[in-house]
Amino acid sequence: MHALIVYAHPEPRSFNGAMKDRAVATLESMGWVVEVSDLHAMSFDPLPRRTDFADPENADFFKYQAEQAHAATLENGFAPDIRAELDKLLRAELLILQFPLWWFSVPAILKGWVDRVFAMGVIYGGDVGFYSRGRLRGRRAMLAFTTGGPPEMYGTTGLNGRVDVVLWPLQNGVLNFVGYDVLPHFHAPGPARADDATRAAMLDAWGHRLREIDRTPKLEFHPLDDFDAEAGWTLKPGIKGRTVGQTGTG
Amino acid sequence: MHALIVYAHPEPRSFNGAMKDRAVATLESMGWVVEVSDLHAMSFDPLPRRTDFADPENADFFKYQAEQAHAATLENGFAPDIRAELDKLLRAELLILQFPLWWFSVPAILKGWVDRVFAMGVIYGGDVGFYSRGRLRGRRAMLAFTTGGPPEMYGTTGLNGRVDVVLWPLQNGVLNFVGYDVLPHFHAPGPARADDATRAAMLDAWGHRLREIDRTPKLEFHPLDDFDAEAGWTLKPGIKGRTVGQTGTG
Repeated sequence: MHALIVYAHPEPRSFNGAMKDRAVATLESMGWVVEVSDLHAMSFDPLPRRTDFADPENADFFKYQAEQAHAATLENGFAPDIRAELDKLLRAELLILQFPLWWFSVPAILKGWVDRVFAMGVIYGGDVGFYSRGRLRGRRAMLAFTTGGPPEMYGTTGLNGRVDVVLWPLQNGVLNFVGYDVLPHFHAPGPARADDATRAAMLDAWGHRLREIDRTPKLEFHPLDDFDAEAGWTLKPGIKGRTVGQTGTG
Repeated sequence: MHALIVYAHPEPRSFNGAMKDRAVATLESMGWVVEVSDLHAMSFDPLPRRTDFADPENADFFKYQAEQAHAATLENGFAPDIRAELDKLLRAELLILQFPLWWFSVPAILKGWVDRVFAMGVIYGGDVGFYSRGRLRGRRAMLAFTTGGPPEMYGTTGLNGRVDVVLWPLQNGVLNFVGYDVLPHFHAPGPARADDATRAAMLDAWGHRLREIDRTPKLEFHPLDDFDAEAGWTLKPGIKGRTVGQTGTG
């Protein structure tokens, strides 16, 4: 069983780095083969470029997703750095995104990894399908992140807003979109201002979460069959919205 | 009155490019001085680097926000490209982010613009304050974006989820967080598959939105005074949650 940890922090001795190391050690002790994409150490390029494609379909008008879909039909259509990440992704039964929550989202380098690697025609779209028919269906993925603020700020009355709202674009729009079973996120609040014992306890809790991974229920999202494609992909009549994104009410 | 349009699309002849051009023309016809940060044309670097800071506080441990706060105390603490963007931002009474919605968010190059330019100690944090006490309070900002899918997919029963949930990290976590009055977004759905008349009508609607900008009510967010800092920044007793982020219910 292969796991892939995509890790995005510019400081190797950061708490995010320690979480990445703990995940590698824990999963390996459980028998997983773990690969890590350390995006800063790799100097991963987060920007879409024409050179991402060996044989562009349209050299005059640069539409990234169309070029991805075209490259997917060729033998070696993608630049080597994208192909290498795709190979890791397609080997992995478990994907962990490890990052500091910056501006309620992933840092730019990790957003660029998604923009470039989750390629139309390979991971979703066209014949591949999306959401519960996405290429990565049946596999598991989760977010693991640090914040500056405490958990209360991400509660239902918290200043930053409910965590399921804050994470919706990542959990539904990235992970669920390509078919993953999405496991609950792991949130390490305020490691920069925590004492050593608190930091150690957070790392232990993270290790425990990973050891329990086969007994962790996935988040609930509506399956694609709940939606009517002919009605603009809206919930079919009689299906009650159960997620924060699809409440069914204005 | 200065406006700043931060534009993130790699193809100049894209519909996003046309929206940017229409916004420049419309706002200039209304008497605004318009500046554009065309991130791809500028080859804007979206990644946090040690070289972003002239005189780092801690050369051994790279904590980006701490270095931002330190640089804010110096005369010329930031790298020239960050300083140039900060100057444009601080001149502008109106900020428009113009982008294709990729993976329910901004492309990496625009995320990196936020990560690097919305600097702690300058735009928020420390003595500056955040949310309704943020540095950019009293100014206006809005999102203008394209999607592949139709608007129904972003409705309350849509497959992608309610648009106010999808946009919460950007509208609350980026724009409201630094004090802006957030104007309703402008969504141009499916321009790549639309005919010329539909595309022209969308551009006209965009121009109309901008001409009505002084009569456009801002989105409602809770002011900072609604929250109790001593209780982890949660809504004070008796304040009823009114946004999708702060519902007050589990």
